[in-house]
Amino acid sequence: MHVPDLIRRKRDGEELTDEEIEELVRGYVRGVVPDYQMAAFLMAVYFQGMNERETAALTRAMVRSGGVVDLSSVPGVKLDKHSTGGVADTTTLVLLPLVASAGVAVAKMSGRGLGYTGGTIDKLESVPGFRTHLSAVEFVAQLRRIGLALTAQSRELTPADQQLYALRDVTATVESPALIASSVMSKKIAGGADKIVLDVKVGRGALLPDERGARDLAERLVRLGERMGREVTAFLTDMDQPLGLAIGNALEVIEAVEVLQGKAGGELRELSVAIGAEMVRMAGVEVDAAEARRLLEVKLDRGEALKMFRRWIEAQGGDGRVAEDPRRFLPKAAYVRVVTAAAGGYIQDIDPKRLGRLVQSLGAGRRRKEDVVDLSVGVVLGGKVGDRLQDGEPLAVIHARSRQDLDLAEREVRSAIILSRDPVPRRPVILDRICLGS
Amino acid sequence: MHVPDLIRRKRDGEELTDEEIEELVRGYVRGVVPDYQMAAFLMAVYFQGMNERETAALTRAMVRSGGVVDLSSVPGVKLDKHSTGGVADTTTLVLLPLVASAGVAVAKMSGRGLGYTGGTIDKLESVPGFRTHLSAVEFVAQLRRIGLALTAQSRELTPADQQLYALRDVTATVESPALIASSVMSKKIAGGADKIVLDVKVGRGALLPDERGARDLAERLVRLGERMGREVTAFLTDMDQPLGLAIGNALEVIEAVEVLQGKAGGELRELSVAIGAEMVRMAGVEVDAAEARRLLEVKLDRGEALKMFRRWIEAQGGDGRVAEDPRRFLPKAAYVRVVTAAAGGYIQDIDPKRLGRLVQSLGAGRRRKEDVVDLSVGVVLGGKVGDRLQDGEPLAVIHARSRQDLDLAEREVRSAIILSRDPVPRRPVILDRICLGS
Repeated sequence: MHVPDLIRRKRDGEELTDEEIEELVRGYVRGVVPDYQMAAFLMAVYFQGMNERETAALTRAMVRSGGVVDLSSVPGVKLDKHSTGGVADTTTLVLLPLVASAGVAVAKMSGRGLGYTGGTIDKLESVPGFRTHLSAVEFVAQLRRIGLALTAQSRELTPADQQLYALRDVTATVESPALIASSVMSKKIAGGADKIVLDVKVGRGALLPDERGARDLAERLVRLGERMGREVTAFLTDMDQPLGLAIGNALEVIEAVEVLQGKAGGELRELSVAIGAEMVRMAGVEVDAAEARRLLEVKLDRGEALKMFRRWIEAQGGDGRVAEDPRRFLPKAAYVRVVTAAAGGYIQDIDPKRLGRLVQSLGAGRRRKEDVVDLSVGVVLGGKVGDRLQDGEPLAVIHARSRQDLDLAEREVRSAIILSRDPVPRRPVILDRICLGS
Repeated sequence: MHVPDLIRRKRDGEELTDEEIEELVRGYVRGVVPDYQMAAFLMAVYFQGMNERETAALTRAMVRSGGVVDLSSVPGVKLDKHSTGGVADTTTLVLLPLVASAGVAVAKMSGRGLGYTGGTIDKLESVPGFRTHLSAVEFVAQLRRIGLALTAQSRELTPADQQLYALRDVTATVESPALIASSVMSKKIAGGADKIVLDVKVGRGALLPDERGARDLAERLVRLGERMGREVTAFLTDMDQPLGLAIGNALEVIEAVEVLQGKAGGELRELSVAIGAEMVRMAGVEVDAAEARRLLEVKLDRGEALKMFRRWIEAQGGDGRVAEDPRRFLPKAAYVRVVTAAAGGYIQDIDPKRLGRLVQSLGAGRRRKEDVVDLSVGVVLGGKVGDRLQDGEPLAVIHARSRQDLDLAEREVRSAIILSRDPVPRRPVILDRICLGS
């Protein structure tokens, strides 16, 4: 393998063989291929792309770089779900217990917050006692016992992806459809699930803001799944405004619990039911999509999803009382301020990226890997695009560590949310569902 | 400076400011910007290019990374000449003494062979005793004394270019017009000359094979020179066949001496006179181009250029008898074979890259930096494209270290040279002359 030749051929738009890609990744993990050659290669891929065969070869090479979770001892079809990341995207916390309460086994590995987007592991760490790191044995045992297990991404799985991701992050080579697709899919394959539902976000708060790019990624992921022997459905969903109302770790857990309690609804509930129904259908529990939806609505309304949530939290060592009274048992910020609109109106726009960055700067995110996250801080919106706010109704509630932070956040919130005197249509949350043959 | 942002902006086709480019280069030389970020940046530049202002900023940053040769103590206009590299390109060895014999001061820094192309420093090392490394003081003193000095590229000049070049070589980012232009020009600026003539090669044996790319580079270099306050003329010359007849270090010195002796002519003499005349014109020795040519023809025919060659060789410690009988005083290969054409004909094609690679594989080039070059080996062609070979006339003469090498080289020579029964037109060597306002 002559690495400069491989880089040159990709740079010139040629295809690489499966063996060449495998060798390159193996060489990289072993330290034979240095970071600078891989960085040049990644930038060449950014410009020239990779076809489906090459993307599958890269995915396979990353899976082979580490171990694979063996779920064969768990009976039935095992499902996994993944989101490309967004702001106030608390779907996982609602969806997992909801689907598990319908008898579908959900095995999920989650990540931490990245940039302005939150991470499920950070959110769950706000639940007192909750263990976010399970061993492979614990993970499988819990999945067998309660049909639901979630753990942080293991260092043993797809080490090549972890190394490549860190390199892409500092070399401006993140936003490549082929690289994103192989990164997502390698983790899902190594996670051991049989079928996968993906939530590909579109809009200003998404990794790929424009619909064309996001749709391309969704289609790639579905076809890549097929090549890797996994059934994949991808949803294309709106991230041009935050998904839920709460942004911030503990605040998002509160919102998820309130959806499970039936106290809150909106697009977070809508999307969780839609994705959940697809998982129920894929697992073969219900054949009909409408029936699957109805089944999940019933599970929510009867409190069975909430019951499963509590079981899950307790199974991983967490305080189950969070399921009853989350506001009481989760971390609270020292300073809270209600920001009201000067005059009422219809919400016309909410900038998700700006709010994501704001909440990160309040302490909920990391600037460096080693930063400690403040679980209590964040922003809770007064409504979503299309909602009407009366005079004096809250635009948002800010949870912060200091008065200065409140002042800074108030300015940002007022700039990020735009009101209109005239009625504004609501935005649909689900833009499309993409699966093989669709 | 946030390096990933700079990479991203270049990747997205944005312009960087002079300060950003300066900071990036400075950070790289100091080790603050790691190789992997620079490699990603270089690949982004490969795809997105740099405009003239950015290229000038990069050139300036590379010049500033090291010292600059101060030629102010040498009276008159100082000229430099640079070729983008080719096969059997021995112009420098003829041109420098020729121009110096006409009273034009020539201060030149040269490089070693790169890939399949030869390097002037390697060629001169075949002259017994010749010192290719002069100190700055020696360099200036010799230039004052005889009007001609040549030395190997100093490590103190443009260290940023040296680091970047090494990185580009292993990351497939060599063939970028902006990067080539800034690399060439930074070395010329640091070399201290007032005016510069560039020989940009076009064809299969050139760095940029197609005329469009080479012409673009030539035009960039002329305009970049203007921005840097240097008058630059660029020649666009043919490298779709070897320039001279000899390929290989000592063999090329022999050919150069024979041109200076008036025994050999052809395109090597033609190009040396043309470039030399331009230098004579730029130095203000002759105003008229035709007069300048005539002056140099006289200097050649009267042996004054040869005399200057001897003076130069002796000034740098070399054996001056090489100027009288080069075949006797230069290293000789152990094995020599004359390859004759089965049937005579007109030479239709000579593949320069193939022959360059062949001679490199015979031992005249380096695979790694630390390889020792065999100064004696090489190939001498029996003619150029358009020449007629009678039955039994030599196609080429091979100089090698072993019989096996002779066998291998014979096969390669026979494949690289194609004869035709019908007459073949000669190829012009000078395709264009590009200067400001041309």
